[in-house]
Amino acid sequence: MTIKRRKVSVIGGGFTGATTALMLAQKELGDVVLVDIPQMEDPTKGKALDMLEASPVQGFDAQITGTSNYEDTKDSDIVVITAGIARKPGMSRDDLVQTNQKVMKSVTEQIVKYSPNCYIIVLTNPVDAMTYTVFKESGFPKNRVIGQSGVLDTARFRTFVSQELNLSVKDVTGFVLGGHGDDMVPLIRYSYAGGIPLETLLPKDRLDAIVERTRKGGGEIVGLLGNGSAYYAPAASLVQMVEAILKDQRRVIPAIAYLEGEYGFEGIYLGVPTILGGNGIEKIIELELTEEENAALAKSVDSVKNVMTALI
Amino acid sequence: MTIKRRKVSVIGGGFTGATTALMLAQKELGDVVLVDIPQMEDPTKGKALDMLEASPVQGFDAQITGTSNYEDTKDSDIVVITAGIARKPGMSRDDLVQTNQKVMKSVTEQIVKYSPNCYIIVLTNPVDAMTYTVFKESGFPKNRVIGQSGVLDTARFRTFVSQELNLSVKDVTGFVLGGHGDDMVPLIRYSYAGGIPLETLLPKDRLDAIVERTRKGGGEIVGLLGNGSAYYAPAASLVQMVEAILKDQRRVIPAIAYLEGEYGFEGIYLGVPTILGGNGIEKIIELELTEEENAALAKSVDSVKNVMTALI
Amino acid sequence: MTIKRRKVSVIGGGFTGATTALMLAQKELGDVVLVDIPQMEDPTKGKALDMLEASPVQGFDAQITGTSNYEDTKDSDIVVITAGIARKPGMSRDDLVQTNQKVMKSVTEQIVKYSPNCYIIVLTNPVDAMTYTVFKESGFPKNRVIGQSGVLDTARFRTFVSQELNLSVKDVTGFVLGGHGDDMVPLIRYSYAGGIPLETLLPKDRLDAIVERTRKGGGEIVGLLGNGSAYYAPAASLVQMVEAILKDQRRVIPAIAYLEGEYGFEGIYLGVPTILGGNGIEKIIELELTEEENAALAKSVDSVKNVMTALI
Amino acid sequence: MTIKRRKVSVIGGGFTGATTALMLAQKELGDVVLVDIPQMEDPTKGKALDMLEASPVQGFDAQITGTSNYEDTKDSDIVVITAGIARKPGMSRDDLVQTNQKVMKSVTEQIVKYSPNCYIIVLTNPVDAMTYTVFKESGFPKNRVIGQSGVLDTARFRTFVSQELNLSVKDVTGFVLGGHGDDMVPLIRYSYAGGIPLETLLPKDRLDAIVERTRKGGGEIVGLLGNGSAYYAPAASLVQMVEAILKDQRRVIPAIAYLEGEYGFEGIYLGVPTILGGNGIEKIIELELTEEENAALAKSVDSVKNVMTALI
Repeated sequence: MTIKRRKVSVIGGGFTGATTALMLAQKELGDVVLVDIPQMEDPTKGKALDMLEASPVQGFDAQITGTSNYEDTKDSDIVVITAGIARKPGMSRDDLVQTNQKVMKSVTEQIVKYSPNCYIIVLTNPVDAMTYTVFKESGFPKNRVIGQSGVLDTARFRTFVSQELNLSVKDVTGFVLGGHGDDMVPLIRYSYAGGIPLETLLPKDRLDAIVERTRKGGGEIVGLLGNGSAYYAPAASLVQMVEAILKDQRRVIPAIAYLEGEYGFEGIYLGVPTILGGNGIEKIIELELTEEENAALAKSVDSVKNVMTALI
Repeated sequence: MTIKRRKVSVIGGGFTGATTALMLAQKELGDVVLVDIPQMEDPTKGKALDMLEASPVQGFDAQITGTSNYEDTKDSDIVVITAGIARKPGMSRDDLVQTNQKVMKSVTEQIVKYSPNCYIIVLTNPVDAMTYTVFKESGFPKNRVIGQSGVLDTARFRTFVSQELNLSVKDVTGFVLGGHGDDMVPLIRYSYAGGIPLETLLPKDRLDAIVERTRKGGGEIVGLLGNGSAYYAPAASLVQMVEAILKDQRRVIPAIAYLEGEYGFEGIYLGVPTILGGNGIEKIIELELTEEENAALAKSVDSVKNVMTALI
Repeated sequence: MTIKRRKVSVIGGGFTGATTALMLAQKELGDVVLVDIPQMEDPTKGKALDMLEASPVQGFDAQITGTSNYEDTKDSDIVVITAGIARKPGMSRDDLVQTNQKVMKSVTEQIVKYSPNCYIIVLTNPVDAMTYTVFKESGFPKNRVIGQSGVLDTARFRTFVSQELNLSVKDVTGFVLGGHGDDMVPLIRYSYAGGIPLETLLPKDRLDAIVERTRKGGGEIVGLLGNGSAYYAPAASLVQMVEAILKDQRRVIPAIAYLEGEYGFEGIYLGVPTILGGNGIEKIIELELTEEENAALAKSVDSVKNVMTALI
Repeated sequence: MTIKRRKVSVIGGGFTGATTALMLAQKELGDVVLVDIPQMEDPTKGKALDMLEASPVQGFDAQITGTSNYEDTKDSDIVVITAGIARKPGMSRDDLVQTNQKVMKSVTEQIVKYSPNCYIIVLTNPVDAMTYTVFKESGFPKNRVIGQSGVLDTARFRTFVSQELNLSVKDVTGFVLGGHGDDMVPLIRYSYAGGIPLETLLPKDRLDAIVERTRKGGGEIVGLLGNGSAYYAPAASLVQMVEAILKDQRRVIPAIAYLEGEYGFEGIYLGVPTILGGNGIEKIIELELTEEENAALAKSVDSVKNVMTALI
């Protein structure tokens, strides 16, 4: 009968993980546990404490705990995985895949041990393959293992369009299928400003330029920062997915979901429109695609499968 | 007749400045300009863009601009200064003071040039002396140059008490006078949980321990992070002061204000309870102090004056 | 240099006016003045005081004043008009029009006297003709006199669709042109769930039923209440328009705007997609319509013009 | 494993109940069921639908259901009781007590039947006796049956002080014990502005006048409205209590709690400071009172007991 706060654990205490923790707490979505490896325990505790010290001023009630002990994640409702390494100069793609695969395996084992009923949201790149890894390793049903890429991709797209048209971000929407970044399949015909198709508001070359900029959106930030990658928009994207589940909002959100025949594909994780609610992925929405879109999606799938060949 | 958005510029694009920018935008307090030196222009642009890309997901409408060009700060309503260096091992106190004094002077010159009617809030340490420097350099009236320390100090105090008593941070209050950190003069008798004096809820030794932990609050985070200092709670504190002014809230907020006889001191900036509203510091609230408190405040003033002797 | 709170006056202290005042204050959009006729001054003061007494608990800082004295509205940034009578059984349409026209004239005179630079948003029915009346009477430029109907009509449409599809209201959009209620011209092809056209998600007969229910949406509430008409959703709609202007959000919002050739019409107020920002109606967005839509719009215009013939 | 939304039922679809429902939904605290008697079912449905139609505009996801069928309240986490009649001219106090007692009994029976594990918050007057009635009738443990009066009384007190001192409501606090309204025992020494005791900020006669106005706060609104009583601040007060429980905030909140020896009283419901969290009343905070305060509290208890003699 006791009413307990929800609990969300965030694996990986880097900038993205920490910003995710902050945004979860700001929305009072539940208590937050920020987890990193033992060598990073103190900095993780430091960030968590600093955030907690912001709570009286920002007016949120949430415990924020920094730890390297997975026992602290016990009975989480949702676990978000931001852990893993970024690709470094000179590193082969396979090395990246295999290193992060190992991280996913070890992290998932701990998550499952302490929160066997949780939902898992994966951000680590290459995100399609990493979500697949977590799915297999966890043994969880497919509705409870979800990858993030579409919220972020559309957020960037929406930002660029809103700047271009000088309109509120609240009224601009975007729509993507397929893989993250370069493999993104934008559905411009399902993208609007105030409900008006963007195709009627912007010339094709401007839209093409915006799509291209969106594809390279992560790289643009990396290039500017010089050292490190984006974390504000990725964190916001994760938090939106957590909120949709914790509040059972049944939102229509592009997410990386496990396909069993949808869109003609089987046994892979891919970015598709989903309904996200209290059961995680409540449904995958299937759309009729044009020939061109189908071709782009097939290419995106090839790319995902190609990455998956590196999994060991 | 056109209704224009408020505009806030944040000088210093490090963690504190960037987090301040994010929190300002989240609250839709106005457009935000994040300024750093030319060498840091790209990373500053990167952070600003990343935040902007979070806006469609977090649902706020605010331009966030990264720049090294002060012209972009033109006609700001409020400018927040987080720029400056932190004390490094082996650096003398005077070196720190003089380095940051130079930063304040150069920054203030630019602020005044482009926003002659703005309010300035200073975070840079040693904050009492730096606020004084900005006051002198700007030529602004005293109500428009304000330093931050008390919101942060009380936020930490409130956090520790709320953890100790296992109560909502919303219902715990604290009260400090004087300088930041070690020089802080806590008024425990004006600190409560749900209106109940903390002295009746916690034994003296626990309160003493919490006060001591609060004094060392900045150092605790530095120690944990290993590399760098607190930024979440400092940013939240700055944002609360900005909000009080932009929304003319007339909040009772501990702030670093210019004394002209209040509390028996003249011509220095010191942490005192103020009313913060649409005219910046609307009023300094004078309290009757006990002998002990007066002595502690005098010691705090000595310490501030001592730092000020290093100003050139 | 003093930063002043925005000020919004709401004319008409009935349920809609009062709920509008509450929602404005909850969002801390500014101070609120609720105005009614002298005979209703006390109840209006009572509602305002009751709301003000909610402010410490809801956590908003806003003065809320109940009055019958227009001097209290001095220097409002925005004035919202909800005053006027509802059609009573046995009353002719012309009687309604002429009674409310008189109310608009007297109210506008007072508004203009005390806030010559304000924006005016009109809710009073028949809203197209009443907005026209206020426009003429005020002598204001057309961007500063705006009628509300489309936000409410689409809100109802979105609610019905979200219930039908069991999806978050956040992801369902609607689109209307033309007059309010019966004269509404829905553009289903511009209405979506998560960006997916509703036409592909719902069979035509269900969509038709939802459109029909939306048209009769006001009447449905009147029928249920038995005594009185809707006020929650109308108030929320007004507040969204106020917020778009006060925060210069440049939102794409269906509003009743003065046409000078747009959509082929001249010299009437009609529901069209607009960009609403710090200049009020920043732009009317012109869409290419199908023949059927054009015909429906022409019919809607006839209906508006027909009402306008009753104006004296 | 499915994450379900919280559910709050509000008994009584009048202004207070409806406003409570709106504020609960605005905060996305859960789905809301608004219940009234069968004769009022249609208006209750009308209000609920009107609120639901505000949700796309206000941006909240919550089902709001109007009903007269208690089955719709099944498995509520919290039930709020606003039902009952107000005292009419010529009605004896005993008549009021006994009429509302009957309402409480019948309502409680239904609540318990469908939500045997819920928390109940009572607003109906005379609230101390009515909370007692619900406690007895429900058979629930004392932590799960709670009355509201102190949040409202202090909200009014805080409003008047904030107006008097021209300060933000956010920084003014108040403190009351004992019964509602006339029987209220204000603890001025525990009331502050920005932590500063009000006794040092306002002369005694002004404080006395504010206390007196607070005592008569309900009557002041009744007098102004002419027809009906306050509902905005009462609704906000209820929502704060619901939020404290649903989010397990462990807030320090004055509430009507069942005393078993605390403050020297036994077997009655009385306004006392409590910790409100995920277990309802987690704790009653006992304060040492002055002789004068003890006398006032004893008088307040006499008054409550006197009302309770009318219970049948």
